[in-house]
Amino acid sequence: MTLNVRGFAAQSAETELAPHNFIRRDPRDTDVVIDIKYCGVCHSDIHQARNEWHQSVYPLVPGHEIIGHVTHVGSKVTQFKVGDSVGVGCMVDSCQHCENCEADLEQYCLEGATMTYNTPDRHDNMMTYGGYSEQIVVSEKFVLRVPEALDFKAAAPLLCAGITTYSPLKHWGVKAGHKVAIVGLGGLGHMGLKFAHAMGADVTLFTRSAGKEQEARRLGANHVVLSTDEKQMAEVKGHFDFILDTVPHQHDLNPYLDTLKRDGVHILVGLIEPVEPAVHAGKLIMGRKSLVGSLIGGIAETQEMLDFCAEHNIGCDVEMIKMDEINEAYTRMLNSDVKYRFVIDMDSLKNA
Amino acid sequence: MTLNVRGFAAQSAETELAPHNFIRRDPRDTDVVIDIKYCGVCHSDIHQARNEWHQSVYPLVPGHEIIGHVTHVGSKVTQFKVGDSVGVGCMVDSCQHCENCEADLEQYCLEGATMTYNTPDRHDNMMTYGGYSEQIVVSEKFVLRVPEALDFKAAAPLLCAGITTYSPLKHWGVKAGHKVAIVGLGGLGHMGLKFAHAMGADVTLFTRSAGKEQEARRLGANHVVLSTDEKQMAEVKGHFDFILDTVPHQHDLNPYLDTLKRDGVHILVGLIEPVEPAVHAGKLIMGRKSLVGSLIGGIAETQEMLDFCAEHNIGCDVEMIKMDEINEAYTRMLNSDVKYRFVIDMDSLKNA
Repeated sequence: MTLNVRGFAAQSAETELAPHNFIRRDPRDTDVVIDIKYCGVCHSDIHQARNEWHQSVYPLVPGHEIIGHVTHVGSKVTQFKVGDSVGVGCMVDSCQHCENCEADLEQYCLEGATMTYNTPDRHDNMMTYGGYSEQIVVSEKFVLRVPEALDFKAAAPLLCAGITTYSPLKHWGVKAGHKVAIVGLGGLGHMGLKFAHAMGADVTLFTRSAGKEQEARRLGANHVVLSTDEKQMAEVKGHFDFILDTVPHQHDLNPYLDTLKRDGVHILVGLIEPVEPAVHAGKLIMGRKSLVGSLIGGIAETQEMLDFCAEHNIGCDVEMIKMDEINEAYTRMLNSDVKYRFVIDMDSLKNA
Repeated sequence: MTLNVRGFAAQSAETELAPHNFIRRDPRDTDVVIDIKYCGVCHSDIHQARNEWHQSVYPLVPGHEIIGHVTHVGSKVTQFKVGDSVGVGCMVDSCQHCENCEADLEQYCLEGATMTYNTPDRHDNMMTYGGYSEQIVVSEKFVLRVPEALDFKAAAPLLCAGITTYSPLKHWGVKAGHKVAIVGLGGLGHMGLKFAHAMGADVTLFTRSAGKEQEARRLGANHVVLSTDEKQMAEVKGHFDFILDTVPHQHDLNPYLDTLKRDGVHILVGLIEPVEPAVHAGKLIMGRKSLVGSLIGGIAETQEMLDFCAEHNIGCDVEMIKMDEINEAYTRMLNSDVKYRFVIDMDSLKNA
């Protein structure tokens, strides 16, 4: 069973994404073959397509917010059958035996998780290729069950933007009575508002741009604070239990740390650069505050998140595009011109 | 009852400490009067005497590691009687009604704790004066009971160096089976070794200087890692549950963050400056790590720490000095030439 697959790939850091045919691995006993219906477009797709993390191998097929249905299962697959609605997120494999994998935290696999694209497969060393394609072959351990109650289009970005924001809110125990602030209103930030609201918290959006009040409230915010307004910032001094910071570029954390209560936690999920300007250690010490980071979530927790979304009727706000609109979509994303996630209708690949 | 007290004070940022007579407040109903027997010498005494935190009011009498015995109690004092062995640490009052005070965390008092010296008293607005003196007058709520099993000389620095290290280890739940690293071997660091060892952890000292192996082991370390040796650092990559960082000046935290396990916690207790060089956010995200701060401890926890020390036979390693040796002691402390804390024998004040 050889899978000759059509997709969209970057052939170099400088070229636009374009049609590309490639071979998927022969399905193993434990593999599920998935016809891809929708694929979300994550900012990291741009980073990788353009080699901004200095590790891209070309051709590179991006996409790790995948929704589709099962078309084939290997002989040892027990959890899925042909026709099931399924999802694949950022990872497709991990060592399965380190202490982090054993704790269902494959994203922190001590031997390195196999990411959905641009990573050598740990068994056959072929590069992985992502969801901007017709089909994907994935070990059943890394396949998620997509509840039928979900809008599949809106569910695709849950596999990355969703779990990235759900996991830390859950891990640090956000619940009713907590005051939670979300920094940034993009793909991650708008999911942060929805999840924090659904968990019962009193939710505030920090934003640098005026005029987002109505939109933020629609997404779950109870309050909006303009972070460029010193008076508004002073009014929330010592106010929050948690800050979920989704900003993907360097920014000054110190004004936000001032808005945390004693024992408050500032959670970074968008930033991987050095924290500059520097955090003042005194701001952590005076109030026993924490600056922490969190990376996506484990497979079991991703399933939990999907089920939580079905229960609470949560999806991403998405704008559907066709496959051949992907380069224009990248340009718009770099201009923050998307509410809040592009999702590719993979049927459009036939004509692209 | 007017208390005319002899002590040692800085009269300006530029002058050495010298004899100084001053008036203590008339004891209130709820006050305890203490004859000071020993007073530890904390690095912050130097900062304050020399106005390095830009808030010193002169004359300034330092000292917040105070051990003595009760000579008078106000009519409403219920917990102490004349003759009791008692201690006073960094704080002598707080608002007593904010959520942090109500949580027994007076060090984070939302209205600002009254520190033992160089702070306006919240009732009469007189400046507070510290333990480099014959007597002190303190509200009984801020007086600690010193177990008779303790060596009083070695107990004095527990009131600051002790609680500063005990509190975070306790708060973050250090226990048997945990791997704990202590950064720095000074007044705080050597107490960190003792407490982490007594809590049952496997204890490592990070040090920049070779040759501390034997000394570190005597104090409770199971291992010593030379942090300037890349090979030794690589060997402890992903190894520690907790790092207690007592270094009081700017230093690169990134190599230490690499030595934390998933969910590891780097605890700052010595640094109040900006964290430079900058922490890489990716180091927090990849492993869900925490960078946190902690400030001394509350009064109830300070009592718990003293009782813990009595139970586990823990004291500071101290070098006794006379009051008129204080200026020389400051010079030696700035050269890291003390193992590990100077304590002033206040009887020597009579002849100083």
